[in-house]
Amino acid sequence: MEQRITLVTLGVTDLARSTAFYERLGWRGQESDATVFFQAGGSAFVLWGRDKLAADSGVADPAAGSGAFAGFTLAHNVRTPAEVDTILAAAAEAGATVTRPAAETFYGGYAGCFADPDGYLWEIAHNPGFQLNEDGSLTLPDFGA
Amino acid sequence: MEQRITLVTLGVTDLARSTAFYERLGWRGQESDATVFFQAGGSAFVLWGRDKLAADSGVADPAAGSGAFAGFTLAHNVRTPAEVDTILAAAAEAGATVTRPAAETFYGGYAGCFADPDGYLWEIAHNPGFQLNEDGSLTLPDFGA
Repeated sequence: MEQRITLVTLGVTDLARSTAFYERLGWRGQESDATVFFQAGGSAFVLWGRDKLAADSGVADPAAGSGAFAGFTLAHNVRTPAEVDTILAAAAEAGATVTRPAAETFYGGYAGCFADPDGYLWEIAHNPGFQLNEDGSLTLPDFGA
Repeated sequence: MEQRITLVTLGVTDLARSTAFYERLGWRGQESDATVFFQAGGSAFVLWGRDKLAADSGVADPAAGSGAFAGFTLAHNVRTPAEVDTILAAAAEAGATVTRPAAETFYGGYAGCFADPDGYLWEIAHNPGFQLNEDGSLTLPDFGA
């Protein structure tokens, strides 16, 4: 199994609401068959009905609608601390809940978190130890471990 | 907010168990401060304690340990149907639960799903409509919508 992720698919309760939310953040996707695909670097970010995603994955979904922590987060790293503030403000304006206001982090960065309409979490972070490439992609540093 | 994901972080209940699982699939990461970072194309895939991830995100975690559907999936697309079978077999061998055996899909592909040690879902798919670039990255087709 090669070391890469092709798609990250969020199971959403209201496709139109979620699509509008990401569009308010400036993202542009393509809808096909009640699924919205956003190009995201060399991967794609996908919105699909939560019931369909669970069924398609062969699992039950007893926690549907609980809005509890889903157990994972997505991060969007930026080049300056000021961009963290700008994006968190734009997300709040677009209807997100800021779950952790922007603040300096233990690793010498600056970051905050918001929850999208289904409670999925994004951390917006400036991490001086994770330099982004020109195209926005990340090459992990050598941790020297 | 640029249209890209920097990190996908899974909150895991046993970091050593999860790290060993992904290593059995051939992935190689770097551990730093009880966090394991895997380069994954132009993004990184990260394993971190679920309790720490929830706290760091500013949310409570009432569903911890329920193992219920987390509401999202990751997909790993491959170039041939045979690779789907190979990877699902390797995942099962590594300790995964196959939640949907490989089968032909409605879109003319061939795919199956497995759950990792915490129940996080991966779909392994051959989708002839999603041609992978040489480096394994995906450029979405024009859906003509």
